[in-house]
Amino acid sequence: MKSYTERDMMRVLLTSLMLCLAATQAPAQSPAPPKQPIPLRDMGSFHIGGRLIEITGQPVKEIVFTPGGVPAKVDPNGTYQLEQMYVQYFLPQSRKGKLPLLLWHGGGLTGVTYETKPDGGDGWLNNFIRYGWDTYISDAMERGRSGWTNTFTGEPVFLPLGDPWERFRIGPIGSWNADKAKRVTYPGTLFPIDSYQQFMKQGVPRWTTTDERIVAAYIELIDKVCPCVVLVHSQSGSFGFKALEARPDKVKALVAVEPAGIGDPKQAAALKGIPTLVVFGDNIALDSRWPQIRKNDDGFFDEITRAGGKVDVLDLPKAGMRGNSHMLMMDKNNLQVAALIQEWLAKQGLVR
Amino acid sequence: MKSYTERDMMRVLLTSLMLCLAATQAPAQSPAPPKQPIPLRDMGSFHIGGRLIEITGQPVKEIVFTPGGVPAKVDPNGTYQLEQMYVQYFLPQSRKGKLPLLLWHGGGLTGVTYETKPDGGDGWLNNFIRYGWDTYISDAMERGRSGWTNTFTGEPVFLPLGDPWERFRIGPIGSWNADKAKRVTYPGTLFPIDSYQQFMKQGVPRWTTTDERIVAAYIELIDKVCPCVVLVHSQSGSFGFKALEARPDKVKALVAVEPAGIGDPKQAAALKGIPTLVVFGDNIALDSRWPQIRKNDDGFFDEITRAGGKVDVLDLPKAGMRGNSHMLMMDKNNLQVAALIQEWLAKQGLVR
Repeated sequence: MKSYTERDMMRVLLTSLMLCLAATQAPAQSPAPPKQPIPLRDMGSFHIGGRLIEITGQPVKEIVFTPGGVPAKVDPNGTYQLEQMYVQYFLPQSRKGKLPLLLWHGGGLTGVTYETKPDGGDGWLNNFIRYGWDTYISDAMERGRSGWTNTFTGEPVFLPLGDPWERFRIGPIGSWNADKAKRVTYPGTLFPIDSYQQFMKQGVPRWTTTDERIVAAYIELIDKVCPCVVLVHSQSGSFGFKALEARPDKVKALVAVEPAGIGDPKQAAALKGIPTLVVFGDNIALDSRWPQIRKNDDGFFDEITRAGGKVDVLDLPKAGMRGNSHMLMMDKNNLQVAALIQEWLAKQGLVR
Repeated sequence: MKSYTERDMMRVLLTSLMLCLAATQAPAQSPAPPKQPIPLRDMGSFHIGGRLIEITGQPVKEIVFTPGGVPAKVDPNGTYQLEQMYVQYFLPQSRKGKLPLLLWHGGGLTGVTYETKPDGGDGWLNNFIRYGWDTYISDAMERGRSGWTNTFTGEPVFLPLGDPWERFRIGPIGSWNADKAKRVTYPGTLFPIDSYQQFMKQGVPRWTTTDERIVAAYIELIDKVCPCVVLVHSQSGSFGFKALEARPDKVKALVAVEPAGIGDPKQAAALKGIPTLVVFGDNIALDSRWPQIRKNDDGFFDEITRAGGKVDVLDLPKAGMRGNSHMLMMDKNNLQVAALIQEWLAKQGLVR
């Protein structure tokens, strides 16, 4: 494994400063400075994957879909479509990324993760489109526009406001308080805490029993649009490593942002041909779970490296960038972090 | 009420033919002809509305979010954010619509309704952006990227493949068959039936008890981005009429595509200042529910007209355009229908 030096960082920070000045980091509600345009040659969406199931033996229902509306007879027996995945794509006129870039989000969230930040600033989607990447955003199977079904095993998980505050390392364990004035953050947190409730509006229910089918849908996406570059975050770290183990020849680089889970260690060698950048934020050592998650990650990367693979770790605080939360793409320096990723992708020969 | 004549139609069809030739109606999977670019000055998304609730007295859970991952303690007590609505917007560089255009979808679906058609052709979103409208697409509260909660009353509704086939007037009652070869359609249906399963991947569960909160979120959207033009479809007909009754001064035109429900008839007079175009597809008389829905709609429009309002009804088959289903924005002639809507909006003085 290779780590970035402080000198690398200084150089990149200088170039990203100009990008940052051009782009916007305006707080919510305040008048935004003029933004760079986004000239697209096309945009669109599709659903992929899924399967059909048969339901039988149910009574026919009469449903009034709208109060005061005309009742409809609905026969719930028959064939159902389920477990598909929603994908939206944006293709810039001036294409500079050599391959499509796929952005996969983390648990309890959707592709909105990469859109406008909760504080109104530009997210990574607009930023990577402006860099010239054909960019594909998906909602993992079961979430958002992918739809969900009552055939999943177990109960969906709903999160109260205080849970991600601590698990996403905005503040330490026990730092959440219903009273805004009494909430504690890690020193110098870069998460836009005034927009925390706005961030929580992005949350969607998620199950803990559906990983295999989520990965199956991602594999179908790879089969449809790759060769490509995949960028994963948090829960989708696990999905990414597993999908790439199944399709190692189709993914030409992997960017794993704070991966919260690993692939199958026995198949780690399959990833040796995929240059990988892993990005970690701050305060990992102070969290109750992240030291172990990081240890699991590092062990998995060691397996890949031992097989002859290349895993670059960008540990932001070690490189002098302090205060990043788990939600790097929403932190105040999100475009600087994106610039580091872009520079790494360029080094892999993936930018024209 | 005024109806379009066949001569109106001929003139509009001629202009829309050129648009149609420029745009694409390619079937899925086949190589698409070059598309017109989409130069945007900005795009983004936000969540709006919703409320907070308190949950107390629940035991703390230990959750393994990823099989083999590090367990997390989740205290389900606390404050929850719910009932917000997701909105995505696209702002063309060359703005020709004088006001933002809001596209609201129908029941059991999301904003995807207006994106790429199930057959791969351009939907109304791209088309109205190309016309130069600042276009806002939302997922109704409870659906898609708006998220959902287990606090709604009653059970969510899931639809088997055969149900929309008949209720959306692709084929007559009893025409669905699990065997593709045995399915019957209305003569000359314009719905792309080879992509019907792809269409059903767009479906999401919906409740029948949440209308008030859906309308509340739409009213918040109107307060944020209007004055504007609102385009509704099917179930959101009811949402649109109700939200506009609450904010009649903020909406400068309403396009109601096959509205499946009406507003409060006692408040119909509030809509008298909003020019309204209603669009109906084919085979309404042959359906089990649509004759009554149409009768309810017409009665509501009469109330508006009696109060001095202006409701133009574009009955497509009466005007010589046969075969449209309930899903006009996905039918093979979707861009021609959009051209008729655009022409009507221009007549209202809303196009530069």
